[in-house]
Amino acid sequence: MKLYGAARSSASFRVRIVLALKGLAHDPSYVSLVKGEHAKPEYRAINTQGLVPALIDEGRLFAQSLAIMEYLDERYPEPPLLPGNLADRAYVRAVAQMVACEVQPLNNLRTLKFLRNKFGLDDAAVAVWYHHWIAEGFAMIERYLTVEHRAGNYCLGDMVTIADCCLVPQVFNARRYGCDLAPFPNVVRITDECMKLTAFEIAQPAAQPDAV
Amino acid sequence: MKLYGAARSSASFRVRIVLALKGLAHDPSYVSLVKGEHAKPEYRAINTQGLVPALIDEGRLFAQSLAIMEYLDERYPEPPLLPGNLADRAYVRAVAQMVACEVQPLNNLRTLKFLRNKFGLDDAAVAVWYHHWIAEGFAMIERYLTVEHRAGNYCLGDMVTIADCCLVPQVFNARRYGCDLAPFPNVVRITDECMKLTAFEIAQPAAQPDAV
Repeated sequence: MKLYGAARSSASFRVRIVLALKGLAHDPSYVSLVKGEHAKPEYRAINTQGLVPALIDEGRLFAQSLAIMEYLDERYPEPPLLPGNLADRAYVRAVAQMVACEVQPLNNLRTLKFLRNKFGLDDAAVAVWYHHWIAEGFAMIERYLTVEHRAGNYCLGDMVTIADCCLVPQVFNARRYGCDLAPFPNVVRITDECMKLTAFEIAQPAAQPDAV
Repeated sequence: MKLYGAARSSASFRVRIVLALKGLAHDPSYVSLVKGEHAKPEYRAINTQGLVPALIDEGRLFAQSLAIMEYLDERYPEPPLLPGNLADRAYVRAVAQMVACEVQPLNNLRTLKFLRNKFGLDDAAVAVWYHHWIAEGFAMIERYLTVEHRAGNYCLGDMVTIADCCLVPQVFNARRYGCDLAPFPNVVRITDECMKLTAFEIAQPAAQPDAV
């Protein structure tokens, strides 16, 4: 199994956590987003999307982090990262998607670059943009966790799920950008609980050889 | 079953297609995004996220369109909208997520509003933004469909899947904004094939009572 990723890519971080939770050995390959290696023909020949992460398993390429996570959970079911109950599965996926569809796409590197290059936004304006979507998205997640009453140590009781694997990397990014997380106590508490687990610890950006 | 949605919301359109494909009767409730009804306390009391779509089934609220689609496929399995083969499932989910994570979040109403209100972008600049993400995202999908060789009439051979349910609404939006789709022949061809099916036809924005 081979994982193409980048230390600070939150979508790569999600997949690293899943691999670690499942104890799956893999060969990591580092793609520098800052140097633009993801957009070069060499990498596009592997993943035509030109995005990280990408996983190769049993000779096949898997793209898009959430699809990769669901694949890994189906192919290597222990420990399960989705519950059996259908309503709980939907809840877990909803939290994961609040990160993956409401926050991350707006705040990833290529989006911020486009804002700078095309519209001339300066650092201060980019920070306004970044903080806005963190505040919006995390408020959404915090309210959802609160009204659903299903969180425990983790997003779903005491079971680690793909929701946690998505939430924690986004919190890392938000902290890196200096966002105020005080209004989101459940988000912060769950993240801190997750970080007590070895799988999350070894998957974090600072623990990767390509961290800068 | 009750669906809270809006005619022109592409995420609502996705869920309408799934309900129609599965022949699930439901009570539609229309939430006007233009009038800001989604953000009002009345709607937030139903869906705390303040987003559409939201589905109520068996007394429970389901949020986030992809999570709703997967839930419906698990709860009402006929006809299946995900294949059985694990690699094919991952492929279908990857296409769905290229729409849901790489295009739609950047081009939805609240994102465009923020660009206008916060950074003062005019119509021309917003159009540049919109067209850029359609071009990037559809190019990604077109290349993926091409290199994977799994498309037939639909994204996965001749099976209608959640990939098609995500792709078609995004094409509708792109056409509405006058995007050039000539560089994406597979995307257009699959959309045209889907629109021959009654489920897609009755789910389209213009067929909804709240269409404006």
